Amino acid sequence: MKILAVGPHPDDVEFGCAPLLIQEIRRGNHAKILVLSKGEASTSGTPEERAEEARAAARTIGAEIDFLDLGGDCHLRHSPESSIMMARQIRLYRPDIVLAPNLDENQHPDHTAAGRMMRDAARLARYSGLEEIRGLPAHSIGHLYFYSITQSFGAQPDIVIDTSPVEKEWEAAMLCHQTQMKTKAYIDLVRARAHFLGSAIGTQSAIGLWINDPVRVESISDLLLSSRNY
Amino acid sequence: MKILAVGPHPDDVEFGCAPLLIQEIRRGNHAKILVLSKGEASTSGTPEERAEEARAAARTIGAEIDFLDLGGDCHLRHSPESSIMMARQIRLYRPDIVLAPNLDENQHPDHTAAGRMMRDAARLARYSGLEEIRGLPAHSIGHLYFYSITQSFGAQPDIVIDTSPVEKEWEAAMLCHQTQMKTKAYIDLVRARAHFLGSAIGTQSAIGLWINDPVRVESISDLLLSSRNY
Amino acid sequence: MKILAVGPHPDDVEFGCAPLLIQEIRRGNHAKILVLSKGEASTSGTPEERAEEARAAARTIGAEIDFLDLGGDCHLRHSPESSIMMARQIRLYRPDIVLAPNLDENQHPDHTAAGRMMRDAARLARYSGLEEIRGLPAHSIGHLYFYSITQSFGAQPDIVIDTSPVEKEWEAAMLCHQTQMKTKAYIDLVRARAHFLGSAIGTQSAIGLWINDPVRVESISDLLLSSRNY
Amino acid sequence: MKILAVGPHPDDVEFGCAPLLIQEIRRGNHAKILVLSKGEASTSGTPEERAEEARAAARTIGAEIDFLDLGGDCHLRHSPESSIMMARQIRLYRPDIVLAPNLDENQHPDHTAAGRMMRDAARLARYSGLEEIRGLPAHSIGHLYFYSITQSFGAQPDIVIDTSPVEKEWEAAMLCHQTQMKTKAYIDLVRARAHFLGSAIGTQSAIGLWINDPVRVESISDLLLSSRNY
Amino acid sequence: MKILAVGPHPDDVEFGCAPLLIQEIRRGNHAKILVLSKGEASTSGTPEERAEEARAAARTIGAEIDFLDLGGDCHLRHSPESSIMMARQIRLYRPDIVLAPNLDENQHPDHTAAGRMMRDAARLARYSGLEEIRGLPAHSIGHLYFYSITQSFGAQPDIVIDTSPVEKEWEAAMLCHQTQMKTKAYIDLVRARAHFLGSAIGTQSAIGLWINDPVRVESISDLLLSSRNY
Amino acid sequence: MKILAVGPHPDDVEFGCAPLLIQEIRRGNHAKILVLSKGEASTSGTPEERAEEARAAARTIGAEIDFLDLGGDCHLRHSPESSIMMARQIRLYRPDIVLAPNLDENQHPDHTAAGRMMRDAARLARYSGLEEIRGLPAHSIGHLYFYSITQSFGAQPDIVIDTSPVEKEWEAAMLCHQTQMKTKAYIDLVRARAHFLGSAIGTQSAIGLWINDPVRVESISDLLLSSRNY
Repeated sequence: MKILAVGPHPDDVEFGCAPLLIQEIRRGNHAKILVLSKGEASTSGTPEERAEEARAAARTIGAEIDFLDLGGDCHLRHSPESSIMMARQIRLYRPDIVLAPNLDENQHPDHTAAGRMMRDAARLARYSGLEEIRGLPAHSIGHLYFYSITQSFGAQPDIVIDTSPVEKEWEAAMLCHQTQMKTKAYIDLVRARAHFLGSAIGTQSAIGLWINDPVRVESISDLLLSSRNY
Repeated sequence: MKILAVGPHPDDVEFGCAPLLIQEIRRGNHAKILVLSKGEASTSGTPEERAEEARAAARTIGAEIDFLDLGGDCHLRHSPESSIMMARQIRLYRPDIVLAPNLDENQHPDHTAAGRMMRDAARLARYSGLEEIRGLPAHSIGHLYFYSITQSFGAQPDIVIDTSPVEKEWEAAMLCHQTQMKTKAYIDLVRARAHFLGSAIGTQSAIGLWINDPVRVESISDLLLSSRNY
Repeated sequence: MKILAVGPHPDDVEFGCAPLLIQEIRRGNHAKILVLSKGEASTSGTPEERAEEARAAARTIGAEIDFLDLGGDCHLRHSPESSIMMARQIRLYRPDIVLAPNLDENQHPDHTAAGRMMRDAARLARYSGLEEIRGLPAHSIGHLYFYSITQSFGAQPDIVIDTSPVEKEWEAAMLCHQTQMKTKAYIDLVRARAHFLGSAIGTQSAIGLWINDPVRVESISDLLLSSRNY
Repeated sequence: MKILAVGPHPDDVEFGCAPLLIQEIRRGNHAKILVLSKGEASTSGTPEERAEEARAAARTIGAEIDFLDLGGDCHLRHSPESSIMMARQIRLYRPDIVLAPNLDENQHPDHTAAGRMMRDAARLARYSGLEEIRGLPAHSIGHLYFYSITQSFGAQPDIVIDTSPVEKEWEAAMLCHQTQMKTKAYIDLVRARAHFLGSAIGTQSAIGLWINDPVRVESISDLLLSSRNY
Repeated sequence: MKILAVGPHPDDVEFGCAPLLIQEIRRGNHAKILVLSKGEASTSGTPEERAEEARAAARTIGAEIDFLDLGGDCHLRHSPESSIMMARQIRLYRPDIVLAPNLDENQHPDHTAAGRMMRDAARLARYSGLEEIRGLPAHSIGHLYFYSITQSFGAQPDIVIDTSPVEKEWEAAMLCHQTQMKTKAYIDLVRARAHFLGSAIGTQSAIGLWINDPVRVESISDLLLSSRNY
Repeated sequence: MKILAVGPHPDDVEFGCAPLLIQEIRRGNHAKILVLSKGEASTSGTPEERAEEARAAARTIGAEIDFLDLGGDCHLRHSPESSIMMARQIRLYRPDIVLAPNLDENQHPDHTAAGRMMRDAARLARYSGLEEIRGLPAHSIGHLYFYSITQSFGAQPDIVIDTSPVEKEWEAAMLCHQTQMKTKAYIDLVRARAHFLGSAIGTQSAIGLWINDPVRVESISDLLLSSRNY
């Protein structure tokens, strides 16, 4: 199985969904991180430093990594052109699962834009006649899930996953982003959210995802784990 | 694994979620249908006839069946007493999964009441000190899912399941309720909904469920099937 | 009365709201289909074939048809410019009713974009001073309704209309799009949805619409038909 | 056509939906006001005075009026028993349209209870076998609409109706409730809301309704009036 | 100023909103905790032990405490009678602010019932004529806020309050409930939630509240503190 | 304290939130109105006349005023570029509070675009590295509130403010826009809404705001005024 995790800035995948990639890679699956800017607008860290931190984090995780230029940090735009660019990335990597920032509008505008691009790209990648990407064979992904980056409040997730078994690896991946440790306490917010969600399901930490399409199972007994703790 | 499917009237489980029970029983799991009235208020069929039809349907499905008296058809009431009665049923059968009518208020009031009772019962069944049911050991279910009976409109389900492999058996279970075939075309509505949902995911027919708690998986690659068809 | 039905691709109006046009034309009203691309990205059918199919369908329906170029299939963009282009179309045709794709974001991005353009265009068409379209007299439409194309799940419609009397004509209009019959079973999804909605109100088939503004009636007894069936 | 308007207290129908009754009666239709308490808990006015005021208002409107005892003001309870009592009233009067207080929970609890009772009653009235009311032939209403009483904030209505042509008669009906003019300025809130809603659609005053079921029309051109003003 | 905090079980106020009471008491305001059961159904702790723990916690907080009998733990019922009982409590204590469990249905049913009772009671307490409580002068509270007890997921709060200055006192109040420390890790969930919310606004810990009515201020510059941190 | 009120057209701030500015200026605070077009598309009034009217209104209110060119009336576009332009304005004026049009999509598209721009701009203004505005020191606003312009229906506001003390001044500010008095009765809609909202909280008139972030207070007793009137 192949997972494509998209982050608008060099640390978004690490803060938002790295443990899921770590788990999949442990299982023998493949993951690629696609970063849509080099964090050019951030208070700390040059674009080069930030890209290098992201590469180090990807190595820690065990994932491929690639950078795209969509105009730079704070300039992501949900448009036919950017969605088609992302559809091309889907056709190139041919993932089974796509992980994208959630669609909530009240967050960094690049996050929302990236989420919308990927939602539309997952559809466009299927249309054979689309001129800009006609050279690459059409591809249908199996799943699109949305993750949360530094959002501080928010709705109940549709899916939860225990991240306790990979907490150390997650921490290591986040800590690769040393330039970001100087300013806001992003990592503390992420840890607090993971610990809160974990305590809700009875584990040390957890991550929540939001679905775009209904979860499909062959039979309800395929869902063995329970999130009922209180 | 044990599944407890609760229906306020003798045909609700058959119309609403029978294919799920059929699939589980085929897999070697166990299912029990709990009927909360004998359809005493219906236009066609005596309570005795209706109970007999339900028993025949349960045999077709391969499930146990039991009837409770909560005041009769059109008299279900969501209250501490009725929720505790249902908690007792949960402690007696000790299911892993509970299937209950969804909570939408704009439907037969017995449906909503039954859904609420089961939601609360699943919680109360865990409290050891609850006097009325202290004799029975506390029990925590793993999952509570809501199904839809004869609702004609409605929101996107959280979970979908292909019912094509058991269509014939589902049909047979519904047709056990011959007295109900005389009045409203309930079975046609159910078939039309299943066919619509199926065509949405690329199968002959499908059923949708609504979740009460987040779906929990060990890793996202555990969800193999996709509901992305358009 | 004049109805303007807008479809992003050559078959959207036929799949989504053709029966409403057929009914209005039977009553002596006028309808125009405005198509915003030639389906250039589709897997089957050339732009020329698809336009020809749409023209044939329009003849079957009895409606005028026109094509606009907004950058082609998969390139529709909700922007001031595109909304003003649509406002021009409204001023040219001067419809009483506008039918546009609904605004749900989880569908083909062209559908959402077209719905938003028409919602804004219906407002802009009223502003006399708008430079790009100052040559055409301002026009206020009476109604804006949203229809659903190939969405597979979705919320309860605000308005329902029995389409049984025009089922054959609807089918004929859809079948004009022969190139689209080769790939996905769009027509089956549309039929299944119409049949499900119909069975909900007690007819063979039905279509649902979503409102942008409250329905206004002179007196509640003006609404004679009932959608209460279950 | 027959309209049944249900109000939990003696002035609710007058404050909430009287103009609709006045319009229908002018058109030759029939209306009945069903009052579910005598306002026993109010700060001003004895139950006898309040019932007398309601009778005077009903005469002004031209409607029949009846009082039921469900335990008195502040004691309405949504339960199988009360819903069946209301189903009996529906079978007795056999209305085409039922008007009930809306279901918002953040208002006088009697309002919410009355709305829920009527919603369920409209369903129960159809079930022939329901023992308590077996003597009366089953009845299916055509429409259930919810109106707003003294709610001060709230969502966009689904239906709007110009009440300018009957403003004087509405005012007269409200003023019959002289005991209620002493305390809170209910009438001012009602007038302000009607004027606000009217100015939104370009009339002197208006009333909004909420639907329980989709509006069904034969053809969209049946809806002639527009609520688009801004 | 007087605050009435209502908890269905002996530890709910401590887990859910104790820091707000501690802060108010420090400012010279008065607080009363009203407990609606003695936790008779819990797995650990006798009713006597649990009441004693609650009394100890109230002393720690500096609040009055009172116990009511509404049928016991797991038997709370939202009904006219229970709402009137609570209206009596409001008239007796005459609070400016009422704190009640939030209205989410997916939690311990006693929590939802208590929230609904208090919402309705705050209204009923104003009606002079209400027979059961006619002896006590009517009272209008100024504010009703909802707090969260052990809910594990949920929507963005409307109001947030930094609880860092009283963290030690809050901890002490929670730890009074020693019998509850044996079973589920309630206190860990509460701490994790407070820490997560705190990290979202840039403090050590925080509590969120939900409003029933719009917040009213004289001028927007009255709101000095900001919750914008990310 | 400094307040920045943003209006897409020359009269939006006056119709939508002028009384809040008047109140703040009375208290010694400072306000600036930022107008994003000159109403070039309106039926009455030239751009010059409209700008002059806005300047007169600003003098009446006591606020600074500035005009920006973002492409003109009906051409506002929510994009990275326009959000960065607004972030520059935030860095230049360094407000504590930003007032922007609400985000409802069903209104003049410029209103929605302006609301979204300001929401994103308030975030971007904090990022030191953002190239286009690197010359200006980063700034974090304290509060972002959304106001309503000529929307005719809508959801309950999160915050309400009595505007009776400044009604005359508000009226004077609105009347500066003489060219707009000729066409639609905008001022009547605004008055009706203010009067309705006022009657809901027991004052002559009121304005409602919507929040982007939770309201943060030090202690709940800081909120002294109540909006509970019915």
